[in-house]
Formats: sequence, C-alpha cells, structure tokens
Amino acid sequence: MLYDHLINPEVLQFCKKSVALGYVGKSKGKHTLPQEEINSTITEMAMQYPVVSRLKGGDPFIFGRGGEEYQHIIEQGFRCEVIPGITSASGASTSIGMPLTHRDYASQVVFITGHKKSDDDYSAFRGLDLSEKTYVIYMGVTALREIMDAIAEKPGNTEIPVAVIQNATRNNQRVLLGNVGNIASIVQREELEPPALVVVGNVVNYLERISQIRQMIRPVSAEEALLY
Amino acid sequence: MLYDHLINPEVLQFCKKSVALGYVGKSKGKHTLPQEEINSTITEMAMQYPVVSRLKGGDPFIFGRGGEEYQHIIEQGFRCEVIPGITSASGASTSIGMPLTHRDYASQVVFITGHKKSDDDYSAFRGLDLSEKTYVIYMGVTALREIMDAIAEKPGNTEIPVAVIQNATRNNQRVLLGNVGNIASIVQREELEPPALVVVGNVVNYLERISQIRQMIRPVSAEEALLY
Repeated sequence: MLYDHLINPEVLQFCKKSVALGYVGKSKGKHTLPQEEINSTITEMAMQYPVVSRLKGGDPFIFGRGGEEYQHIIEQGFRCEVIPGITSASGASTSIGMPLTHRDYASQVVFITGHKKSDDDYSAFRGLDLSEKTYVIYMGVTALREIMDAIAEKPGNTEIPVAVIQNATRNNQRVLLGNVGNIASIVQREELEPPALVVVGNVVNYLERISQIRQMIRPVSAEEALLY
Repeated sequence: MLYDHLINPEVLQFCKKSVALGYVGKSKGKHTLPQEEINSTITEMAMQYPVVSRLKGGDPFIFGRGGEEYQHIIEQGFRCEVIPGITSASGASTSIGMPLTHRDYASQVVFITGHKKSDDDYSAFRGLDLSEKTYVIYMGVTALREIMDAIAEKPGNTEIPVAVIQNATRNNQRVLLGNVGNIASIVQREELEPPALVVVGNVVNYLERISQIRQMIRPVSAEEALLY
C-alpha cells in the first residue's frame, strides 16, 4: 500500500499487519517525490504483489494527479480501479460548517490550484468575478499575497470574505478569517503554513449567520481576523 | 432516517430494521418536496427520536441545500453534525475513469447548476472561457440546448468535447459523448433523461487517450456520439 504525506496516520491503523506499506510523499528534505518516481514505484509493486492500493488524501481526480497515475498503470498492462474520495474542499468546508454553494450566496463553486507555474503567472486570478461564486484555492497559501493582489484588481473584491483552513479535518485544524484585502497579512502574522485551503466568496458570510445562532464562534469582521 | 430520491435503494439495506425511514424526495407527481417541508419534517422527527439522520445523494454542501437544512436545524435548537459525501461530479467522473483536473487539460474545475432560474437566464454560461477548465453542470440536462447555445457564443467552443453521465455510479449508468455543438441533439435522439451530469472541457479527451490504451471504448469523435 502506497500512501502520501497528506494521509492521517490514524487511517493507516486500519491496514492489516501483513500489508507492506510504502511512503511516496515528501522526503525529509521537504521535496516532493517526482511523479515519474511515484508512477514507477506503483508498477514495481504491482509486479511483486497481487493487489496494490494507492492511498491519497482527498480525491485522486481533483488535483490528485490520479489521471497521470491511472494512465501509467494501465499503460503498463495492469488493471486499475479508481475509488473517489472526499476532496479537501468538501472535507474542509464541512468541518467548519460552511456550504460551498447556497441559494443566498453562490450558485457555482470553482476548485483551482494556487500552485505557482512561473514567478508571475497569476492571470487565472486577475480581477475574478466573484458574484455568486465560491473559489476554493488548493495549495494557495505559499503565493497567497500574489493571488489576493490579482483578485483585488477588480474593484469591490477587496471586501469579499476569505477563510483559510489549515490541516482540514485533522485534530490540529486551524481556521483564519479575513477578506481579500487583509487575509495575506493575517496569515503571515499568524504564521500559518501549508497545507491549507483558501475559500474566497460571500459564502464565508454564512459562518457569521450561523455563528449568531450558535453563539459558539464570534461573527466575521472585515477588520479583524478570527482565530478559532 | 430521512432520505431523498437520489439514494441508491441498496444503501438503505444497511439500516437496522428498527430504524424509522422517511422519504422526502420527489412525490408521485414528480414534484420535489418544498425545502420548507423537508426542513420541518427533519425537526419534527428530531422531537420524536434521539438521533435523526438525513441521507442525501452526493455532498450536502455542494448543490445539496445542506446549508439551509443545517441552519434550520440549529435555529430550532438541535445539535447537528454534517458529514461530507462524494459529490456527484467526483462519483460520475471516477466511474468512467476521467479526471476533473489534469496537467495536460485543466487546472481548474467548476461545479455549476444548470437549474433554470428564469426562462432565459443562461448568462452564467454565455461565451465561457473553457481553456484549462472543466465545467461540471449539475441538473443540466433539462435546459441542455439553451446552456450549450450560450456556451457556443464564444467562437471555438463548439468543438469542445462534452460527456453526459446519467445515473452516475448506479447499475443503469449511461454515458453519451459529443461536443458543445452537437451534444443537445445527441441527448435528445438517445432520449436521455435526468438525473444526469454534464461535463464540458478538454479533459473529456482524456477518455480518448485512455481508450486507445485500454481499447475498451472507441475514441471520441466530433461527428459521432459514443454510447457505452
């Protein structure tokens, strides 16, 4: 069984003791294993074992590079079945009680990667139309300031609320709230590190509506970030 | 336990016999139960039983109106836990072996509802920029022609491939392939009915790449629809 660095260690406890475990996540030097190496590790194991499972955090077909692994596996002549998973956006938003679509806030939701392609390519974020939309940015924390600056190129976007959810669904989950204009500074001040999901859109205001009912979390303020 | 019309009947077999089942899906007249009635049914049951579960197809927070139900439940003073699910887009795309994002095809995926708001409001689809994007249209079959016509307002979009997946993940699953220009006619000719998901974007070409390897499905043709 091959697993990556986003797998909750508690999940691995479900494996039978006889199962051979292989880690294909980040190495000690924090470098991600190249996809080609992961691919060949999978098919090497497939030659040794009758059944190989490849466990990923989230859904393999949404920013999971499952398409590449699937293609490699069947190219090498092996049978392969893909089982869908709860993508991080669903897990994270559910864990804080915030829908991704809602009749009052958003009629579409966009999952987009914030992973840098080149040093200044944030064109996908430039002046986004955020009306009735929720944007969930995967791997968006490292370049958060550049992404938010690009989004803010449209007048009015600065005040759109943003939630950053770190270690979603795990015990050490942490949430920061702000808006397009201030979230990068808040994240920097609170020293929040990846992995984290960034949710941009008026649906974040749902948390405020809910918090007034639950009185468990304080309301979202445009000026002040909430840490809970 | 309250369940709706998209629940696979086989799933209900997992319930203990002592559990009271309540159906809150479409009535015989094919009308959907108004959300307010579902909400009040949930809280009425919560007054009768120590634990009430509300089972939905897909993910409750992605076009599931989970946000509205959650708010109603806690407003009535009940505790509520939301458990995320595999949203239909993930289930459907995985069942046909097609990723929603892929380095070669799409760096973002959009989930959008095709449910009519008013008779001619398809502005959200008008001349969409489909480069490096996958659009998954929930409830998009009823107004498929209007939606595709709106997308085709951008020159070049006509040739973008489209997959329509009916009864995703169930035994009677059916897939139709075509492009923005011809899929509405194909769906009409094949008499495909809702519920179905519509996937628009170059990632549909991945199926062709994979089929050349698997030689299990014929390649996608722009002229001809594939039914398998």
